[in-house]
Amino acid sequence: VIPEGYGHLLERPLFAHLATTRPDGRPQSHPMWFVYRDGLLRFTSRSDRPQSRNLRANPVLSLSILDPDEPYRYLGLEAVLEDIEPDPTGSMWYELAARYGLEGVRLDDPSTRVVLVARPTRFWHQ
Amino acid sequence: VIPEGYGHLLERPLFAHLATTRPDGRPQSHPMWFVYRDGLLRFTSRSDRPQSRNLRANPVLSLSILDPDEPYRYLGLEAVLEDIEPDPTGSMWYELAARYGLEGVRLDDPSTRVVLVARPTRFWHQ
Repeated sequence: VIPEGYGHLLERPLFAHLATTRPDGRPQSHPMWFVYRDGLLRFTSRSDRPQSRNLRANPVLSLSILDPDEPYRYLGLEAVLEDIEPDPTGSMWYELAARYGLEGVRLDDPSTRVVLVARPTRFWHQ
Repeated sequence: VIPEGYGHLLERPLFAHLATTRPDGRPQSHPMWFVYRDGLLRFTSRSDRPQSRNLRANPVLSLSILDPDEPYRYLGLEAVLEDIEPDPTGSMWYELAARYGLEGVRLDDPSTRVVLVARPTRFWHQ
């Protein structure tokens, strides 16, 4: 259950910082665009990026999203990867670029684009 | 070596998102205050917080820091924990509260406060 008063942090086009675990156990932090819809988080990445490689090896991820209006509030969550979907047209990249207000940019080569799909399993907040 | 043009992200009072690995290998993301001085990162935490517990088990951490002026730029780094220093007066908390502009707040009970000290070993950027 999303903590009361924190749901707007999943609705707004904020940067989420994604923590993944590398195959050797080291953590890695990456700022990410995201969209949360029908109970699932979606991110755009590429199949050769660390995020994708790490999640193929360890499908658990964590996010932290700061409230830009009250910077001592944040939403944290843990999620489990459900799928890595090929996205060779970059459709999710374009959807997120529009959501985040990045206009007029075209991907040079979307052939390795993927959508990371994850289901939140636990939330915390401050 | 800090990438050219990205050093200001370590100097300014920005939130860093800290990725740590839990003892069972799951990642966890936490927004953190920090200060970077003499080649070392310092954070305030408590000995019973997940950050401290995770770093005692796995001393590698990763940070991502967005450039608030150009949100598609960010600095990423990996660091290795050097020490968890007891800070029973909360001195690092007060130093960071002043750095981040949080005025007039007193800690109720700083007895479990610690300083996480880490040395960056690798940087990346976008």
